[in-house]
Amino acid sequence: MPEAGTPSSYRILDTASVPAFIASLPEVHARLGGQARGWQVREVGDGNLNLVFIVEGPSGSVCVKQALPYVRVAGSSWPMTLERACFEVSYYRAVASAVGRLIPKVYHYDPELYCIVMECLAPHVILRRGLILGQRYRNVGRDIGEYIARASFFTSDFARPCEQKLEGIALFARNKELIRITVDLVFCDPYRASARNRHTAPQLDEIVADLRGDGALKVAAARFGEKFLNEAQALVHGDLHSGSVMVTEEDTRVIDPEFAFYGPVGFDLGAFLGNLLLSWYSQPGHATRADDRVGYQRWILEQVELFWQSFRSCFLALWADNAQGDVLPASMFTRPEDAGALESARGAVLDRLFTDMLGFAACKMIRRIVGFAHVIDFDWIQDSDLRARCEGSALAMARTLLTHPAQFHSIQDVADALPRMLRQ
Amino acid sequence: MPEAGTPSSYRILDTASVPAFIASLPEVHARLGGQARGWQVREVGDGNLNLVFIVEGPSGSVCVKQALPYVRVAGSSWPMTLERACFEVSYYRAVASAVGRLIPKVYHYDPELYCIVMECLAPHVILRRGLILGQRYRNVGRDIGEYIARASFFTSDFARPCEQKLEGIALFARNKELIRITVDLVFCDPYRASARNRHTAPQLDEIVADLRGDGALKVAAARFGEKFLNEAQALVHGDLHSGSVMVTEEDTRVIDPEFAFYGPVGFDLGAFLGNLLLSWYSQPGHATRADDRVGYQRWILEQVELFWQSFRSCFLALWADNAQGDVLPASMFTRPEDAGALESARGAVLDRLFTDMLGFAACKMIRRIVGFAHVIDFDWIQDSDLRARCEGSALAMARTLLTHPAQFHSIQDVADALPRMLRQ
Repeated sequence: MPEAGTPSSYRILDTASVPAFIASLPEVHARLGGQARGWQVREVGDGNLNLVFIVEGPSGSVCVKQALPYVRVAGSSWPMTLERACFEVSYYRAVASAVGRLIPKVYHYDPELYCIVMECLAPHVILRRGLILGQRYRNVGRDIGEYIARASFFTSDFARPCEQKLEGIALFARNKELIRITVDLVFCDPYRASARNRHTAPQLDEIVADLRGDGALKVAAARFGEKFLNEAQALVHGDLHSGSVMVTEEDTRVIDPEFAFYGPVGFDLGAFLGNLLLSWYSQPGHATRADDRVGYQRWILEQVELFWQSFRSCFLALWADNAQGDVLPASMFTRPEDAGALESARGAVLDRLFTDMLGFAACKMIRRIVGFAHVIDFDWIQDSDLRARCEGSALAMARTLLTHPAQFHSIQDVADALPRMLRQ
Repeated sequence: MPEAGTPSSYRILDTASVPAFIASLPEVHARLGGQARGWQVREVGDGNLNLVFIVEGPSGSVCVKQALPYVRVAGSSWPMTLERACFEVSYYRAVASAVGRLIPKVYHYDPELYCIVMECLAPHVILRRGLILGQRYRNVGRDIGEYIARASFFTSDFARPCEQKLEGIALFARNKELIRITVDLVFCDPYRASARNRHTAPQLDEIVADLRGDGALKVAAARFGEKFLNEAQALVHGDLHSGSVMVTEEDTRVIDPEFAFYGPVGFDLGAFLGNLLLSWYSQPGHATRADDRVGYQRWILEQVELFWQSFRSCFLALWADNAQGDVLPASMFTRPEDAGALESARGAVLDRLFTDMLGFAACKMIRRIVGFAHVIDFDWIQDSDLRARCEGSALAMARTLLTHPAQFHSIQDVADALPRMLRQ
């Protein structure tokens, strides 16, 4: 049943009702081909918030994503605005020209059903699942680095007049309910007593108590919470972890931008980096006799480095050709002698994004181990002692990133530190 | 004539039409008393953007402020949105409960005439004029420090749940045309060739050329432009110079918040500080045989220190009692051992605001000497050589604040530096 406040024209789709809905959209119908009664419909949503249907016809397939009026994982006791579908489609439209084929094509948005009909990504898999299986995707680090560079640069004050950004800020500031989720679940609850928190117990009890008693750590996390709410640098995806990336060996796509808003670029960078680091620490839990995953951990670290380097170089390359915004405008640096100052100013912007990335990565790691929503990278490790060791190592790394940021001047420093935090 | 896009119900008021407008508002009519035909109406606007009428009746008086569809100082060739009146009244309403008697009372807002009817401040004078005359207002530094503390704290993430702030951000992000003015006139034009710029010539030609060739200075100014557009810390007034403050010997009021938006708190702090420093440097230009203004400069410095100290202590005192926001929430720091970490985190927030204040103050000083809109503190100095020396000293101070921020750890450091920058 829809919640109070849900528009009366809204109804929850199911596999029986999806074909008639699709058949009412001539262009999408044509894409599938044949007749609606012959289409195959499967519900495949494994996220926390939505229904996701794959519809297959003789000529093609589409994906139908519908917002539910509550948090799926928690049931109807946790109501949730349907409007997030509108923010998702608004995000896709806002970044489409910048990121090209790195997002799925959107075919249709139904504002009454809060439902997006879009490209069906096949044979793509969720990156997080691939990482658990030890699969390699040679473009993924580079692609996501480039994705964040393109999406954020072109929605920032470095590229666009402030009027465009202010319009975006006004639109996405309405995404209050999803911003509230991040504030609570990422920046607050992990650091205080909350009925929603959980952790591998009793193994991590002591570590978690120590974490919640670490004043310096809590202050550092709160500083990133402040940045999350205060720094409207660019349009950010808002939930760019390895479960929001679909991959094949060659191809990379970013999905699920319903948490989108104007925020710090480091939040997207940190979400992806943090989840790669979680994967790295989870690998001992997925080792087999045939594969100790040590080589795979090396591959993850290569992706970590490629990710940051491609972000940095792509962002700077875009900036060199598109400095049409109001911050550091080209018109202020027209003399040949200005070139050095401008270049170092741009470098300083990237250095600040690097620092932000590490802090946000740490916050995202911590919340996945001691907060409400965990990751299957760890949850699928059956042996709870082994799982706790993996999680404890990841927590140690995250705490170091937050409380000793000066130890990390380069992405190589991060890679070098990872094994030092391993708990046996 | 209203510009294209002006609503048809809009008409420009004049002294002849104001009484009938006021007479149509029963509460305001009652406040004035008597009959409309007996009211005295004067147009007193001396700002750049609006008409301001004082209406006096037998029982009382009111002020009528109407937005014009163009920049008054530039004439109809520079069209300007009428909507700024809506942002002004929205700002007053948003901060009224926090700042109490430090703003005028708003009696009525007419959304079709873009016209605010409010308390007539008498015998108040514009602070800037008082500073030129060498008048002392013993509460002004303390009052404005407390004003900014109260208005910004209660609209920040330290005091309010993020949903409230996001609603404010969405509303004030529509104030695009006035934000554009600040971006261009404060953070860009002074540092590049622009037909709108002017300076005292030829005396300052060399200094201005040197300033526009100083890469490090331009980068520092651009960094504050970035903060202006990116850091939505709180609802800020947006134009809080000494021309936006009205005073009597005892009373202080903040007016003209039409540039309001969610931005960095340091921008309001810096606007006020920067204009006090401009006044300090302008004093030799207003010296007479009877008063060399040296004692008055000392009084200005006392106000500078009182201003920052009252801001800081008021902000911290409010925080101690009202930590109900989402950043550094009290619920994360409940253990006795957390008190020290929390206190130092709050101190660090204030330290960052101090640093921001100095940078924004410098930007505001520079733009008033080499940009479009100057200040009468300098413009009223008839002797152009003397004026240029005063302006040159202020520019030297502003450049030091921007390019050597590490020299200034306390407001006393600022006060100590001022005389060192004096040019003879």
